[in-house]
Amino acid sequence: MASKAVVVLSGGQDSTTCLYWALDRFGDDHVEALTFDYGQRHRIELECAGKVAQHAGVAHTTLPIDTFSALGGNSLTDTGIPVEEASGNSLPNTFVPGRNLVFLTFAAAFAWQRGIADLVTGVAQTDYSGYPDCRRDTLDELEQTLRLGMERAFTIHTPLMNLSKKETVEMARGLGALDAMALTHTCYNGQRPPCGECPACQLRAKGFLEAGVADPLALL
Amino acid sequence: MASKAVVVLSGGQDSTTCLYWALDRFGDDHVEALTFDYGQRHRIELECAGKVAQHAGVAHTTLPIDTFSALGGNSLTDTGIPVEEASGNSLPNTFVPGRNLVFLTFAAAFAWQRGIADLVTGVAQTDYSGYPDCRRDTLDELEQTLRLGMERAFTIHTPLMNLSKKETVEMARGLGALDAMALTHTCYNGQRPPCGECPACQLRAKGFLEAGVADPLALL
Repeated sequence: MASKAVVVLSGGQDSTTCLYWALDRFGDDHVEALTFDYGQRHRIELECAGKVAQHAGVAHTTLPIDTFSALGGNSLTDTGIPVEEASGNSLPNTFVPGRNLVFLTFAAAFAWQRGIADLVTGVAQTDYSGYPDCRRDTLDELEQTLRLGMERAFTIHTPLMNLSKKETVEMARGLGALDAMALTHTCYNGQRPPCGECPACQLRAKGFLEAGVADPLALL
Repeated sequence: MASKAVVVLSGGQDSTTCLYWALDRFGDDHVEALTFDYGQRHRIELECAGKVAQHAGVAHTTLPIDTFSALGGNSLTDTGIPVEEASGNSLPNTFVPGRNLVFLTFAAAFAWQRGIADLVTGVAQTDYSGYPDCRRDTLDELEQTLRLGMERAFTIHTPLMNLSKKETVEMARGLGALDAMALTHTCYNGQRPPCGECPACQLRAKGFLEAGVADPLALL
């Protein structure tokens, strides 16, 4: 039996690129997409994830996580807290402690039930965010934790881990994923077409510019 | 500042013993109890956890986790699936993949927000269940994952890890936790007074019998 993979799909540029990476690596009919509805303030992300999965022709499941909203205290789920950037050595207030650990643990549980051992996530330690649960050393530990904790030889694939945004755009182009980019969501202000001003929009624009590729989302 | 601890409190015998262990170790006013409402079929557990925390005089928070019910496929949240014991080398159908990993990751996130680094859980690898995410080697890896992923020097305390049920009862007696035992819930069939027949009831009865202690719950 050929191995199958579960891709954590947020509906953004990076996870969409990873979905196409997985289709290329594991083959059609061997990839499933998993999205988490964790109370993100921009509900449009969930809609985008569904459209991307449909465009790619993969099965798509959305799992709810109501715990982060109950924990509170971060700008990604608390609409009363404005998004701020990190200052100095402190973490940005978009940091939800353990968010990526929880996503991958639930992705592993989902995969476990389906006999799947390969997990794919679009996190990148070159990203500006500096989230410690997106670094490869953390995910190496998590991989080992999941292997022991569920008795399955999970692999956490992070194809974008060491890529710049420019290189991610180049990868998407090479995988034929540019059409799907028009369906993705990036803007931290939740706007569509994107605001073009927030750090997420600016980072995305820089990547496409440096890769010499027109962003299909910017052409909307 | 004296260190503080978060105790994962299910409302059962083991986690209640751990709550008193933490009060002894960290001191009054330095312990918080955290309970997860993950859709457990026996809602009485949540009520018991609240009563135990109140009896012990500690702050108590219940966090929801709706994801396991959405994942489905196990007898702890699916009321359509009867509880069965493990057969041979297979895991019992009460196994929820990653449940304890998720509990401790959310407990760490909760602790992180409060400046707390000590987590306490009542899991025991001597338990009959054989859940792989309750073993110390798994929790050693998880501890390292949480340290890296949230940039805090978490310690996962497992005071019951290598104790028999008899020794756990003896510990509870030594900590003055026997009164609280009347408030706990153990029965897999959700009955109160307990059914006395299910594996959980029988294991509990055996522990009290061997320790030569009358179970206050059995006297109800």
